[in-house]
Amino acid sequence: MELGMIGLGRMGTSMVRRLQRAGHRCVVYDIRPEPARALAEEGAVAATSPQEFVKQLAAPRAIWMMVPAGVVEQTLKTFVPYLGGDDAIVDGGNSYYHDDIRRTKELEAKGIHYVDVGTSGGVWGAQRGYCLKIGGPEAAVRRLDPIFASLAPGAGAAPRTPGRANRGGSVEQGYLHCGSSGAGHFVKMVHNGIEYALMAAYAEGLNILRHANAGQERRSLDAETTPLRHPEHYQYNLNLADIAEVWRRGSVVASWLLDLTATALLESPDLANYSGRVSDSGEGRWTIAAAVEESIPAPVLSAALYARFSSRAESEFANKVLSALRYQFGGHEERAAPPGSPR
Amino acid sequence: MELGMIGLGRMGTSMVRRLQRAGHRCVVYDIRPEPARALAEEGAVAATSPQEFVKQLAAPRAIWMMVPAGVVEQTLKTFVPYLGGDDAIVDGGNSYYHDDIRRTKELEAKGIHYVDVGTSGGVWGAQRGYCLKIGGPEAAVRRLDPIFASLAPGAGAAPRTPGRANRGGSVEQGYLHCGSSGAGHFVKMVHNGIEYALMAAYAEGLNILRHANAGQERRSLDAETTPLRHPEHYQYNLNLADIAEVWRRGSVVASWLLDLTATALLESPDLANYSGRVSDSGEGRWTIAAAVEESIPAPVLSAALYARFSSRAESEFANKVLSALRYQFGGHEERAAPPGSPR
Amino acid sequence: MELGMIGLGRMGTSMVRRLQRAGHRCVVYDIRPEPARALAEEGAVAATSPQEFVKQLAAPRAIWMMVPAGVVEQTLKTFVPYLGGDDAIVDGGNSYYHDDIRRTKELEAKGIHYVDVGTSGGVWGAQRGYCLKIGGPEAAVRRLDPIFASLAPGAGAAPRTPGRANRGGSVEQGYLHCGSSGAGHFVKMVHNGIEYALMAAYAEGLNILRHANAGQERRSLDAETTPLRHPEHYQYNLNLADIAEVWRRGSVVASWLLDLTATALLESPDLANYSGRVSDSGEGRWTIAAAVEESIPAPVLSAALYARFSSRAESEFANKVLSALRYQFGGHEERAAPPGSPR
Amino acid sequence: MELGMIGLGRMGTSMVRRLQRAGHRCVVYDIRPEPARALAEEGAVAATSPQEFVKQLAAPRAIWMMVPAGVVEQTLKTFVPYLGGDDAIVDGGNSYYHDDIRRTKELEAKGIHYVDVGTSGGVWGAQRGYCLKIGGPEAAVRRLDPIFASLAPGAGAAPRTPGRANRGGSVEQGYLHCGSSGAGHFVKMVHNGIEYALMAAYAEGLNILRHANAGQERRSLDAETTPLRHPEHYQYNLNLADIAEVWRRGSVVASWLLDLTATALLESPDLANYSGRVSDSGEGRWTIAAAVEESIPAPVLSAALYARFSSRAESEFANKVLSALRYQFGGHEERAAPPGSPR
Repeated sequence: MELGMIGLGRMGTSMVRRLQRAGHRCVVYDIRPEPARALAEEGAVAATSPQEFVKQLAAPRAIWMMVPAGVVEQTLKTFVPYLGGDDAIVDGGNSYYHDDIRRTKELEAKGIHYVDVGTSGGVWGAQRGYCLKIGGPEAAVRRLDPIFASLAPGAGAAPRTPGRANRGGSVEQGYLHCGSSGAGHFVKMVHNGIEYALMAAYAEGLNILRHANAGQERRSLDAETTPLRHPEHYQYNLNLADIAEVWRRGSVVASWLLDLTATALLESPDLANYSGRVSDSGEGRWTIAAAVEESIPAPVLSAALYARFSSRAESEFANKVLSALRYQFGGHEERAAPPGSPR
Repeated sequence: MELGMIGLGRMGTSMVRRLQRAGHRCVVYDIRPEPARALAEEGAVAATSPQEFVKQLAAPRAIWMMVPAGVVEQTLKTFVPYLGGDDAIVDGGNSYYHDDIRRTKELEAKGIHYVDVGTSGGVWGAQRGYCLKIGGPEAAVRRLDPIFASLAPGAGAAPRTPGRANRGGSVEQGYLHCGSSGAGHFVKMVHNGIEYALMAAYAEGLNILRHANAGQERRSLDAETTPLRHPEHYQYNLNLADIAEVWRRGSVVASWLLDLTATALLESPDLANYSGRVSDSGEGRWTIAAAVEESIPAPVLSAALYARFSSRAESEFANKVLSALRYQFGGHEERAAPPGSPR
Repeated sequence: MELGMIGLGRMGTSMVRRLQRAGHRCVVYDIRPEPARALAEEGAVAATSPQEFVKQLAAPRAIWMMVPAGVVEQTLKTFVPYLGGDDAIVDGGNSYYHDDIRRTKELEAKGIHYVDVGTSGGVWGAQRGYCLKIGGPEAAVRRLDPIFASLAPGAGAAPRTPGRANRGGSVEQGYLHCGSSGAGHFVKMVHNGIEYALMAAYAEGLNILRHANAGQERRSLDAETTPLRHPEHYQYNLNLADIAEVWRRGSVVASWLLDLTATALLESPDLANYSGRVSDSGEGRWTIAAAVEESIPAPVLSAALYARFSSRAESEFANKVLSALRYQFGGHEERAAPPGSPR
Repeated sequence: MELGMIGLGRMGTSMVRRLQRAGHRCVVYDIRPEPARALAEEGAVAATSPQEFVKQLAAPRAIWMMVPAGVVEQTLKTFVPYLGGDDAIVDGGNSYYHDDIRRTKELEAKGIHYVDVGTSGGVWGAQRGYCLKIGGPEAAVRRLDPIFASLAPGAGAAPRTPGRANRGGSVEQGYLHCGSSGAGHFVKMVHNGIEYALMAAYAEGLNILRHANAGQERRSLDAETTPLRHPEHYQYNLNLADIAEVWRRGSVVASWLLDLTATALLESPDLANYSGRVSDSGEGRWTIAAAVEESIPAPVLSAALYARFSSRAESEFANKVLSALRYQFGGHEERAAPPGSPR
């Protein structure tokens, strides 16, 4: 079928390519002209203005926005005046689902169908396909089905779950209409909340393994430092790249994230190129906000989010309060950090 | 080669079968005679006493214990008197690595080589092979290599990690000599600590998804209960089995545990057959103990462990303290639980 | 001076009494007529309708709402039509500070000054005085100063902080103008977030002390249960009431909450009258929401909040997921709870 | 009565002074001669060798060790050869209670009574008295009662708990015989575990308050950074010293630690002299180890301990794993820290 793509960054461009390989006609637009021109050479129709972009698409139109969450509002302001009459517009980025609910109301009044899609895949999506979590009105979602089917990884991407045969549905293809407006981004939001925690689980475990040689370190013996009672229990110099690798086969913790961990550790056992200041892009925070509003305990997901905050020194003032209190009640002076090393 | 297997529960029996399929001669023993008899019909040599078991094996012997951690000590007491002269004995169960270090010292003095193996695989190992994390003296580990190679899943069990070609080693077969005595169980211990957290990450996320319809519930309006500010944000009735399924293809959270989650939710969307009293078998606790001794923060792994404790009502007295304090300072009476439902 | 009090529950009634003892003229109103009648016998002016209530107060009026957060909006709708011309209205309850910011804008447009006050004190406030955290416009807050001063505990309630002499200000009296609209409820919100964590700290610690006799229990020996390695380390039957009491003098953990803990445990060492279903009233949740929005790690405050959720069985589905997964990968059947006891 | 004090650091010296003021005869010893000489001028008997120290005391002796946990073993080795015949020796430091249990067995065999005392008080103890948690054999503890009574704060240090009148016992004086050997240090251990969490609760809360102006900051708008949705909700510049002060009177979070917080923030609102590398001295770790062995959930206490570890950069490798993974699956480059500020 035909799709208009707005936003030709890494993700948008890859998705257009995947769609074109599947035989779809793509009209493309970006505020910078280069990416559209590049895709034009691969057969896409490059639009040079929003107005032209809309004109190139046959009504009722199917349009996909692949832009940062922070510019969705502006993008809608730009394009909506040219739309109506059963046109459908997809937000495939990382918007907050609250915004989806609000936008749906506003756009339905104008005869525009708004569809929210939580898109997984990152830099691997071009090759593996994109896992799509979809929210919005039934009819519009059904109309876009050929697009979703082409973007998704396909059933071959994983072995069949026992009992799934004869069940039908798109879910085994890797895309799912989760529910009404916002449901797609809600499910993607929680996906990312889980993702943070899975990553943190491996990270903490590997950190424990890395310090399995703690008994070899010389620790100062003073009232401020707890000595290891049994240094003989911490004498292992473990090869983390090998350990991640061996877990990939036959263990309970095997996963795609573990595959990537094994790759990263093989490339650089010390991960010396990374500073360890870990960003977070919103979904993890919103997951915690949802958990708290639903009164659902989420200690693991929260701990993972806070670890990211702490990695960016956001605990600094709290830590100073602790030091100040220790000084107040115990006269404890802070110990200077030994040059070049933690602990 | 030849291996003696002590302990013919579900795991031990499956491992013997896998070894026999690979052409190894197995001598088998269990305190109950039946399992040995059954394996004898499949070609194993069934021993009826510890003494006979040892006699059936050619020196230097290779022996594997697959017994609960709590009976390893007794098992060693029974068999060690008949061993010596470079015999090797493997503990393939879930022993605490502290015990490995101690036992190694005791047994080396008697000319017996003790090898600790953290074995992953559970009920799936028979089919998938066992992921083996090995600790102990180099020579003994090398001697047992054919056994490890036959038990492990093999390189085909996962696609090759980029950069692994030409590196050699057993790790791509799914077994790894991690280090000196105890290293195998140490690595398995942390594996399980991670496993608990991965499981908890999915569990918390699914719980948030399941209550995405919180806005549909009627909540009482009193000073003790926080009303939902925006019930319109929590109106989703999500199909968790489908969501787990769709995440299996192309998403970041794909994993073997997610595969199993999809299976479980497909079988029973409400998981009504489970009471949710979650056991823990030691490794998760020891992982936290190691983290604390190494002074490594493990908030995610700890939260996962504590969730299991709480599922078994171990927070009960702490909760009563909270209720008692709320009554003391605020006169807050506890609210009775509405029949048949939490919250 | 003169104050109108709307809402004559436990808190509102006590506050009126404290104000009258201090010589203030109080006009009182409640949707139920009884509490106003009772206060009339103690010298208050009982109004029987909103209109009459407003008429009884001299302009510019000072009015205090002491009603549940959920009915503030309705209360304002009822009274605001009669107000204007520099009248000031205080929300002394537990409103979300977002609402304060919004209401201030709406009311300033009508010439009404809105002041938010986070009020601590509970059932003890009548006797100890109320700790007041105040937000809103400077002039209105200054005008209400005699009211705040009479409600607050007074400087004698705590020894002077070193360096506070000659600093002046109301803070040593126990009330503080924290900042612009919403600041009072923001500070009270975080106060409650901290309160939850302080309570949880004592609760967890006491739970550990209570189970210091874990080595005396008989635990079953199977693969699902971790035996205590050193039962001889857990043979203490501790008297928790005495321990809470001894900590009250000279220890680092002395606090008002500890005083109450000591009282509660003395009354009932087992706290058998409490079921341990712990409510939460909003501020703890909002504190976490604020932390997440500010990207400030709050693992301790969050853990305390989640413990309350878990006490109300909100983890139930998550726990079932864990049990289902353990069954899927390990064939682990859940263990029935032994009758009459956790663990 | 008569007491020998070994270890004349800050704590030991203060305790001798308090005992002498109460009329007890003190024999004192330290490996450095100066502190004993100084106390001799105040009336103590200064011993210049272990042998002389023991000789100066009348049998059956009462001896108190106030030395770092790491040198208790050596101290016992030095003094025990001169002891026996019902002599009692107190360990008043921060020993692990496991050691108490072991030492008691060893020393009872030699006719020496070992008493463990968890001593709270820090630099304030000289003035406030010491809160004493005592473990060990009944008879020896009873014999030392006059010493405990003189060191403890006394009943006047806190108002009486309702219902305590006519109950008798030492607990209102601020000392308590908690149970058999190790019980004193066990109770002190959990005390410190709680202490860490109380401190962290205030620290996290104050950190949230300090960043209540987050909406005033300029945050970059890119896909890696979550913008504040409502900067208008975070416009407060709060005076933390005043907030801590106001909470001291009439609020639920009033405590001795809050008193010290108010002092520290008044001295230095930014706590600029502190680096925020927070030490931990063992008891917090042992508390978690005990919780895990007892299978008691301790998420709040654990989070507080881990925050200290993290303040010392112990999360570093874990954070690098997270960054490496984000790069692997999403191509996310780390963002450099803006000069001079976290976030």
